[in-house]
Amino acid sequence: MSFQIPRGTQDILPGEVEKWQYIEQLARDLCRRYNYQEIRTPMFEHTELFLRGVGDTTDIVQKEMYTFEDRGGRSITLRPEGTAAVVRSFVEHKMHGQPNQPVKLYYIGPMFRYERPQAGRFRQFVQFGVEALGSNDPAIDAEVIALAMDIYQSLGLTKLKLVINSLGDIESRKAHRQALIAHFKERIGEFCADCQTRLEKNPMRILDCKKDRDHELMATAPSILDYLNESSRTYFAKVQTYLTKLGISFEVDPRLVRGLDYYNHTAFEIMSEAEGFGAITTLCGGGRYNGLVQEIGGPETPGIGFALSIERLLAALQAEGISLPIETDLDCYVVALGEKAKEEAVVLVHALRQAGIAAEKDYQDRKVKAQLKAADRLQAQYVAILGDDELEKQVINVKNMKTGEQTEVPLASFVEYVKQALV
Amino acid sequence: MSFQIPRGTQDILPGEVEKWQYIEQLARDLCRRYNYQEIRTPMFEHTELFLRGVGDTTDIVQKEMYTFEDRGGRSITLRPEGTAAVVRSFVEHKMHGQPNQPVKLYYIGPMFRYERPQAGRFRQFVQFGVEALGSNDPAIDAEVIALAMDIYQSLGLTKLKLVINSLGDIESRKAHRQALIAHFKERIGEFCADCQTRLEKNPMRILDCKKDRDHELMATAPSILDYLNESSRTYFAKVQTYLTKLGISFEVDPRLVRGLDYYNHTAFEIMSEAEGFGAITTLCGGGRYNGLVQEIGGPETPGIGFALSIERLLAALQAEGISLPIETDLDCYVVALGEKAKEEAVVLVHALRQAGIAAEKDYQDRKVKAQLKAADRLQAQYVAILGDDELEKQVINVKNMKTGEQTEVPLASFVEYVKQALV
Repeated sequence: MSFQIPRGTQDILPGEVEKWQYIEQLARDLCRRYNYQEIRTPMFEHTELFLRGVGDTTDIVQKEMYTFEDRGGRSITLRPEGTAAVVRSFVEHKMHGQPNQPVKLYYIGPMFRYERPQAGRFRQFVQFGVEALGSNDPAIDAEVIALAMDIYQSLGLTKLKLVINSLGDIESRKAHRQALIAHFKERIGEFCADCQTRLEKNPMRILDCKKDRDHELMATAPSILDYLNESSRTYFAKVQTYLTKLGISFEVDPRLVRGLDYYNHTAFEIMSEAEGFGAITTLCGGGRYNGLVQEIGGPETPGIGFALSIERLLAALQAEGISLPIETDLDCYVVALGEKAKEEAVVLVHALRQAGIAAEKDYQDRKVKAQLKAADRLQAQYVAILGDDELEKQVINVKNMKTGEQTEVPLASFVEYVKQALV
Repeated sequence: MSFQIPRGTQDILPGEVEKWQYIEQLARDLCRRYNYQEIRTPMFEHTELFLRGVGDTTDIVQKEMYTFEDRGGRSITLRPEGTAAVVRSFVEHKMHGQPNQPVKLYYIGPMFRYERPQAGRFRQFVQFGVEALGSNDPAIDAEVIALAMDIYQSLGLTKLKLVINSLGDIESRKAHRQALIAHFKERIGEFCADCQTRLEKNPMRILDCKKDRDHELMATAPSILDYLNESSRTYFAKVQTYLTKLGISFEVDPRLVRGLDYYNHTAFEIMSEAEGFGAITTLCGGGRYNGLVQEIGGPETPGIGFALSIERLLAALQAEGISLPIETDLDCYVVALGEKAKEEAVVLVHALRQAGIAAEKDYQDRKVKAQLKAADRLQAQYVAILGDDELEKQVINVKNMKTGEQTEVPLASFVEYVKQALV
């Protein structure tokens, strides 16, 4: 009997995992610079949280959630995205009362959506995201966008497009909503069933529909930008001013929308423009959600954030032909011949490791030649050779694999020698 | 409406999360030294994998798994432990055919068990573990044990007890099994229902029973050590010799057993002996499982590994009163007064971050005094103060918060100045 990995999931193996480690480390380092701190929430939450926080009219909630009953009969769901749980935690731990405001958080970890597996789409995928909760300053919108761009650019990506939009405040959205209903109402019968439901519930999401994108009414649909009231216009102008000052290029696209009511003001997406990247070019999506904390049961609190998938980031790196500067070499491999030398090698390798040196030896009872091959495969910088003769004389031969230089070193100073040589 | 975290799970928040980051980084660094590479498997697997790989007579499988049907009707289970999935991946990716043998892997991530929540026990908890697959050398047993000990000791723990045992090979286990059945059979009626089932299925697990631990037959039960055949005795002696040579103290405890058939030879546990650590003192458990790869459908391959919980590790640190050397300070906080200075501060903070400096500013429209307080709370090493006047003169005041020294720096060289000052 043999077992297979669940469909739509993947193992990340040595050889590939180093890229993930590198990207995560870079994201963590950037978060340190931008003063975002990590939060870790559980892999699952009570299902109601996502109905409320993600929205029960969304595809995610209607079709894609891993929902099940636990042994206590409560409905729980593997998290399909990160924001709802971060906000749940913000409210539950009363972070709105902390002195440091806004509360700036980041997360990185697996998310789960039961989608049809396809190239670059997984049922378990890893998202990195940030949330800044508690500030209404357009400067924080610019900061969040800058951080997202910084991650991609620090990795060497250049074929990026940043698209922004404003959904305005509640008043602006309401006015736009009326205009959308008026625009589509008479001919809604020509649209798909989903759009017909959306007309009353969520007319903005019609603009997002993939099936009806070519309908002639789409091109002429009222633009949110024409319905922004003055304060919303001012806010959006300020965000753009900051982005320009920070040297971040962008396009305004009024068709970039978010269906849910608690999204407002700034919305943004980062796309890859690399050739052959595939049909779905969005790498990162984010925006402001001033209504969400209240929706989850907390006090009125502004918020903004983004999420990006590491899988798509890796695909973008590949599309641009970028290889990350990953080091996987070993510091020292100890080759041993003879029974006593083999035993002594166990002690030497341990001593090297205790001194902070990445060291390895043979555990397969291989001959010297095969041990040297193994050292080579592991890209050992130094190879130390110990035979029973050397052991007798209490010395060991150390070879610098780059220069070929060989040195006989007293066993007693072997660790120190390698340590110095590596500096 | 407000939402709560699922019972038995926890949020790891800023202030606490830094400990997790520190421990993970240390574990990763030690794995680099010991030449173990990371593997990441999905959070869930097909349920059958755990029935086979963990064993369908275990408490984990019978009572504690988060098992559910996905939308495609397949039974999947959130992983209750790490080894089964690593071995599944080893077999699926034919790692036994790789030139580097043994295959040395580590993992770190959440595991899930539906247990009654209690102090230090969570339904989602994080395990770090390693698996070395493909070698039958007692030196690798010693290495795996040394790595586990190294993690605890590198964090400063000293009140540790390492207990080891040998379960012998199949022949030895069979002989011991017969002796156990003979020993308990006549009076098995005096034992709990679980033990009565175990007598035929898994007599070794009777020795592990918490309910019957005080029964008089327990103390006189036949010891596995008396049933080891010669090669098993030699193997165990060699492991002990290596541990001694590596300076690792241990005790041999013949009552340390593993119920499942594919465990053999070396078994070990590391316990905390810190006062007030609580009833469950085991921090880490591991051992050899030469039968497991075959059980999961792969070729006959020896293996050994261990797993430890980060939650219990943190509890042990607390019990020994150890605080980790965590740095959370900010490099530079930019205080701004006046409308123009505030806008300029956005640009300056961004420029600092681009230069690798951890920088922050105010986003709450606070007065100077409150901004200085915020800088203080964030433990900023440098505070830079910019007013409209300074902006006019194109300078900024930089204060070293440790020395109190203040310097007026041209805006054009501000980033460079802070960068140099931080070195």
